[in-house]
Amino acid sequence: MPEPWPMRPADELRDAVEAYLGTLAFAPELGALEESIRYSLESGGKRIRPVLCLAVAEATGGSMDDALPAAASIELVHTFSLIHDDLPALDDDVERRGRESTWVAFGQGVALLAGDALLAEAFRLAHSYESPAVAHELVGATLGMIGGQYRDITGDDADLEELHRLKTGRLFVAGVLMGLDVAGVPDAQRTAWLAFGEDVGLLFQVVDDVLDGDGYAERLGRERAERLAEETAVRAHLHLDAVDAETAVLRELVDVLAVRTG
Amino acid sequence: MPEPWPMRPADELRDAVEAYLGTLAFAPELGALEESIRYSLESGGKRIRPVLCLAVAEATGGSMDDALPAAASIELVHTFSLIHDDLPALDDDVERRGRESTWVAFGQGVALLAGDALLAEAFRLAHSYESPAVAHELVGATLGMIGGQYRDITGDDADLEELHRLKTGRLFVAGVLMGLDVAGVPDAQRTAWLAFGEDVGLLFQVVDDVLDGDGYAERLGRERAERLAEETAVRAHLHLDAVDAETAVLRELVDVLAVRTG
Repeated sequence: MPEPWPMRPADELRDAVEAYLGTLAFAPELGALEESIRYSLESGGKRIRPVLCLAVAEATGGSMDDALPAAASIELVHTFSLIHDDLPALDDDVERRGRESTWVAFGQGVALLAGDALLAEAFRLAHSYESPAVAHELVGATLGMIGGQYRDITGDDADLEELHRLKTGRLFVAGVLMGLDVAGVPDAQRTAWLAFGEDVGLLFQVVDDVLDGDGYAERLGRERAERLAEETAVRAHLHLDAVDAETAVLRELVDVLAVRTG
Repeated sequence: MPEPWPMRPADELRDAVEAYLGTLAFAPELGALEESIRYSLESGGKRIRPVLCLAVAEATGGSMDDALPAAASIELVHTFSLIHDDLPALDDDVERRGRESTWVAFGQGVALLAGDALLAEAFRLAHSYESPAVAHELVGATLGMIGGQYRDITGDDADLEELHRLKTGRLFVAGVLMGLDVAGVPDAQRTAWLAFGEDVGLLFQVVDDVLDGDGYAERLGRERAERLAEETAVRAHLHLDAVDAETAVLRELVDVLAVRTG
């Protein structure tokens, strides 16, 4: 184990994500499309994926500042997916986090383009690293997520775990792996981290479904879904027992995810 | 001037693009979404942008094989933009090149995801180079194109030239610059090439508008638009006079674009 070093608590990491996203410069050619992009990005999300990325980087000796572009790229991909998912062509959601969804506020055409632009901007951030690892993770996670969404809309949800491993899990795993990329953790030391990322994604999804009364809660019943969440949180902690890192902030994140109510 | 070397004619470059696209492997997680992606990609387009990229690479001493992933990445971005543009949220086109547009054939939700996936796959191809230059060009061109499309749908077409420089021109310029990237042509030798790419894009657009009776043909009248196309083709040849390259195939491409009828 390395010596413990001063770790930023999760709240501080979230503030850093917000500040970074708030000052992010978009391509000037986008013109007034930027308004819809900022509207979507500043919608009061919990920033769990980028915070996870920063926390893993710090836990393994990387620097938060170095990890910020990678962390933000994940949040941009997440936001792109929300904008497109909300469109009438997919989920037809008129509201998100208590505000009009992007297409209601700006029109479907603008929302479509705002999502496209966010995906491209995400790749720009991922390219800013000398190593291609971050961009490689981002493209794989994005394609996995799209594959999960495709299964979702075509009703191919026989294997609900696989569907969510793709649709939700891949971005959580990418957050973890990008944090390791930034900190320079070699591939050989990533097995437990990968399992940790998958379980954090599953934990997020199961709790989400319990709160919404769908997905796992519908499939398993509320009680069994709650038990699954608890077991998944325990597993996430066990994975952290197996890594060479300062895991206090990550354990805090797991616990917050396990008991969240919104 | 370098010594002339054997150059592949444009038809052979197009065949190489078709073959490369036909065997391109997509992320397995996309599952059956791949069907709609292949449908869109195999729609009998002219492959002008990737052929331009390959021709520039060969003209400047690069290898066609090295340029194929870059060339294909541009075609994937182009195809993604067509799929999304055809959606009811944007242009609401039910047909493209004599076939049902992707959303008519597969549904709007699937078409939306197919476009998203193509954009991500394009970035995967662009990442496959050791140098970040190709990926950098691709992201800039994609964002410029989206900015042009935004101007188009919001009716901000006061500056038609700027609109098309973004919406159409950026991918043509990217094709030229990526060809130079692959061949290792230094930045200092790119001024005439950049102007060439912009004029080829403009030539393509003006001829397109003459054929469709809109855009420049509507704004200038058919005769003046045809004259603009001729002047632009002449300028493109003049730019080629100024570069250190074997330009025969590129001149053939310009001439084909100038007289095309479909």
